[in-house]
Amino acid sequence: MTTAYEQLCERFARLANVNGAAAVLHWDAATVMPTGGAGARAEQLATLSLVAHEMLCHPEIADLLAWAESQAAALGRWETANLREMRAKWSHATALSGDLVEALSRSGSACEMVWRAARADDDFTALAPSLTEVVNLVRQAATAKGEAFGCLPYDALLAQYEPGLAAADIDRHFDALASFLPSLLGRVLEYQPVPPAAPERMSAAKQEAISRRLLDTLGFDFEHGRLDVSLHPFTGGVADDVRLTTRYDEADPLGSLYPALHEGGHGMYERGLPSEWRLQPVGGAMGMAMHESQSLLVEMQVSRGDAFLHYLSPLLRELGGVSGPAWEVKGLSTRVRHVARSMIRVEADEVTYPLHIIHRYRLERAILGGDLAVTDLPGAWREGMKSLLGVDVPSDRDGCMQDIHWMDGAFGYFPTYTLGAMVAAQLYRAAEAALPNLSDDLSHGDFTHLMTWLGEKVHSQGRLYASADKLLSAATGAPLDDAIFRRHLEKRYLGD
Amino acid sequence: MTTAYEQLCERFARLANVNGAAAVLHWDAATVMPTGGAGARAEQLATLSLVAHEMLCHPEIADLLAWAESQAAALGRWETANLREMRAKWSHATALSGDLVEALSRSGSACEMVWRAARADDDFTALAPSLTEVVNLVRQAATAKGEAFGCLPYDALLAQYEPGLAAADIDRHFDALASFLPSLLGRVLEYQPVPPAAPERMSAAKQEAISRRLLDTLGFDFEHGRLDVSLHPFTGGVADDVRLTTRYDEADPLGSLYPALHEGGHGMYERGLPSEWRLQPVGGAMGMAMHESQSLLVEMQVSRGDAFLHYLSPLLRELGGVSGPAWEVKGLSTRVRHVARSMIRVEADEVTYPLHIIHRYRLERAILGGDLAVTDLPGAWREGMKSLLGVDVPSDRDGCMQDIHWMDGAFGYFPTYTLGAMVAAQLYRAAEAALPNLSDDLSHGDFTHLMTWLGEKVHSQGRLYASADKLLSAATGAPLDDAIFRRHLEKRYLGD
Repeated sequence: MTTAYEQLCERFARLANVNGAAAVLHWDAATVMPTGGAGARAEQLATLSLVAHEMLCHPEIADLLAWAESQAAALGRWETANLREMRAKWSHATALSGDLVEALSRSGSACEMVWRAARADDDFTALAPSLTEVVNLVRQAATAKGEAFGCLPYDALLAQYEPGLAAADIDRHFDALASFLPSLLGRVLEYQPVPPAAPERMSAAKQEAISRRLLDTLGFDFEHGRLDVSLHPFTGGVADDVRLTTRYDEADPLGSLYPALHEGGHGMYERGLPSEWRLQPVGGAMGMAMHESQSLLVEMQVSRGDAFLHYLSPLLRELGGVSGPAWEVKGLSTRVRHVARSMIRVEADEVTYPLHIIHRYRLERAILGGDLAVTDLPGAWREGMKSLLGVDVPSDRDGCMQDIHWMDGAFGYFPTYTLGAMVAAQLYRAAEAALPNLSDDLSHGDFTHLMTWLGEKVHSQGRLYASADKLLSAATGAPLDDAIFRRHLEKRYLGD
Repeated sequence: MTTAYEQLCERFARLANVNGAAAVLHWDAATVMPTGGAGARAEQLATLSLVAHEMLCHPEIADLLAWAESQAAALGRWETANLREMRAKWSHATALSGDLVEALSRSGSACEMVWRAARADDDFTALAPSLTEVVNLVRQAATAKGEAFGCLPYDALLAQYEPGLAAADIDRHFDALASFLPSLLGRVLEYQPVPPAAPERMSAAKQEAISRRLLDTLGFDFEHGRLDVSLHPFTGGVADDVRLTTRYDEADPLGSLYPALHEGGHGMYERGLPSEWRLQPVGGAMGMAMHESQSLLVEMQVSRGDAFLHYLSPLLRELGGVSGPAWEVKGLSTRVRHVARSMIRVEADEVTYPLHIIHRYRLERAILGGDLAVTDLPGAWREGMKSLLGVDVPSDRDGCMQDIHWMDGAFGYFPTYTLGAMVAAQLYRAAEAALPNLSDDLSHGDFTHLMTWLGEKVHSQGRLYASADKLLSAATGAPLDDAIFRRHLEKRYLGD
């Protein structure tokens, strides 16, 4: 006879297969789908999403969860964590009424459409009513989930992306960053050397060859994954079939290679998830911050450091056919570590990026808390950009309308980017301590030891721990420590 | 208040979306999926298939069907046909017990695996037990469906692929073909000219450029479709996103262009299905024979005829960079119309292909009827090939183990290939009568009038008619007529 826990495992595996199918279809839509297929695809994805929701909210799941929890003493460590994750997924799915879920989905899709036009026209007043509706519905959802989970509404939103994280934690970390980043930025801008003049163009074919070589170097297994082109780079698919994307701009080869490395970091995490827990909730990635930490560890910690540039520079000259000071280690280092006050988040560097995030985090808290009306967002955006980044924002298009996240109702997501950067710094420091030859390894393009260490400490742990902070503590001996990220930035950008 | 019929439409649209998602995932698996993704993909597809089956067998569907049928007087012509198609889908899904469906699926997968090894080893005795199990289960399924539908067991299998078709019809048509094809083949082999020597190679890139040009010429809309490479050419995806595949062999360019034209014919049918009935059963293609008729009408009737070769020959020289007698209309015509006694079905020409099919049809009827034991198949295969095609079969690998169909339990499928060829001949003759300038159009690569005619008579009719024969009668004024196919072959291959 199968136990309640075993029956749950079977149902969650089915759920994972439906979601896996949807993930591949999302990849297809972003890479190879002909434009005329968009309508049919939207309907297929909406149906799969509905099927998954109905599977999760099936009345028998509630009974099975209660039954399995009453027998939990018999479960091992991973099984116990798996049951906890099943309960969490069920709680999120059932906390909202079907009407609210549908209203959120509909208003998000509608707002996204309005946003595309309003952004093109730089017309925030055209966007405001739709965004206000999204905000009102997200606020309702946050309240309902907060009541169901016994936490603050904003924390309930965070929990969708990052379990075990509270706004109070973010406040502490972000206040610490905000206390030194603006002045650090000022000093870096004075201190940093001028990068060499823009070098020659590189064909997309050469960029692709280099990207593939770099992913090989990381250890990415093309028997279980692909690299393709999309408008915005992303990592999709499923753990046994990881679909990475990048983009090629012949005038900006580093602008394709670094996204490929970034997605490669995500891809190595997916590939390293515990295969014996495939399709089970506990076998998934820890959360968005830990996922981002794996991409940023590769892209920022490793690939913008001098050791790796000693490997990259000859590779670019060999496979890219380029030459001159801009491609030497020294020239490359000033290019990949160039810092600038910026208006656009996705173009920001390692120093200014957290300021963009802190800015958004503060605004979204104020909006959801009712302290900032949507109609007052443009002004608040300009003020925050001026005070945090020292930037004057000339238009709402390049201001508060630049990101899609809020339009789709994704409040509580932005903080994970910067928490990921901080986690990356802390993991990398622990790896350096554990692997005394790391710098030498990287200068030869040898990622074996680093990836083995990450695999053991992070990838293979899935969602065994109840929060990213607990996983980080187990991996590095301490919870998230702002000082490590600060020292990393000071050392790299001020040579302190 | 929504009617029972409207509720059924909503449920069948959901079902179509699940099946559409699966269709794209099948395409992905055959074209771009990394090999290591096969296990995860098999699980995703099995789950979607289970989800679709559960949707269709949901107890409420039976109630809704009965309710809607009791109110059918209020429905229009298309709605009535739609309800008939819903009932048919439901009947097929519910006629078998869940245990039998699962046993069929499992034994088919197992037999396919055994077959791959046994075929490589040319070892039929290794295959026989697995194939016997499949046959026994298919026989059970045929009996159960026959009882449920009130028809002969084999007719119940046919109905899965071709509604309204009975074995008695096939017997009549195939006996007629078998009465003249062997002697026709003998005369063609004496009559036909020797084709010019094998011409130079053509790069895959050039073959692809020509294939794309030919699909453009057909009117295939790349905004709603793609052309990619797979081991075996096929047409997949959904009607608004049609995924065609072909393959490129630099030593055999015609071996990629004709499959592309063949799949293009399938693709034009999919694209021409009535968009106002998208996702509904009545909006689908008529059946496998009608589908094959559309591919063969393009590949065989049109593209191996002299008029089209007047368009193709200069195109091959222009885009393919080839020259010489093998690429002139005369040389091309002897190459694309070359007939040979053959052992392998998929390599057979227009004259011998039906003999391969008649052979398989007779054998599968004997096997299912209990008149031929699976263990006696190799001997019966050799006898049939000798008497129908005059071919000695040296091995089971190239004999009764060459096709995958039976291994997967697909009995009743083979006849649709040759019925499709006959339908194609009859449709083409009707098109010639309706379009006096057709030959001239085709010699200029102008498919507009032909495709408009096919769109009106066939594509746009979906499954409005209860059988392919009824649709054919409406389109051509007469039910399927063996004499038309015979005259086509005699005229083309004997110049009579």
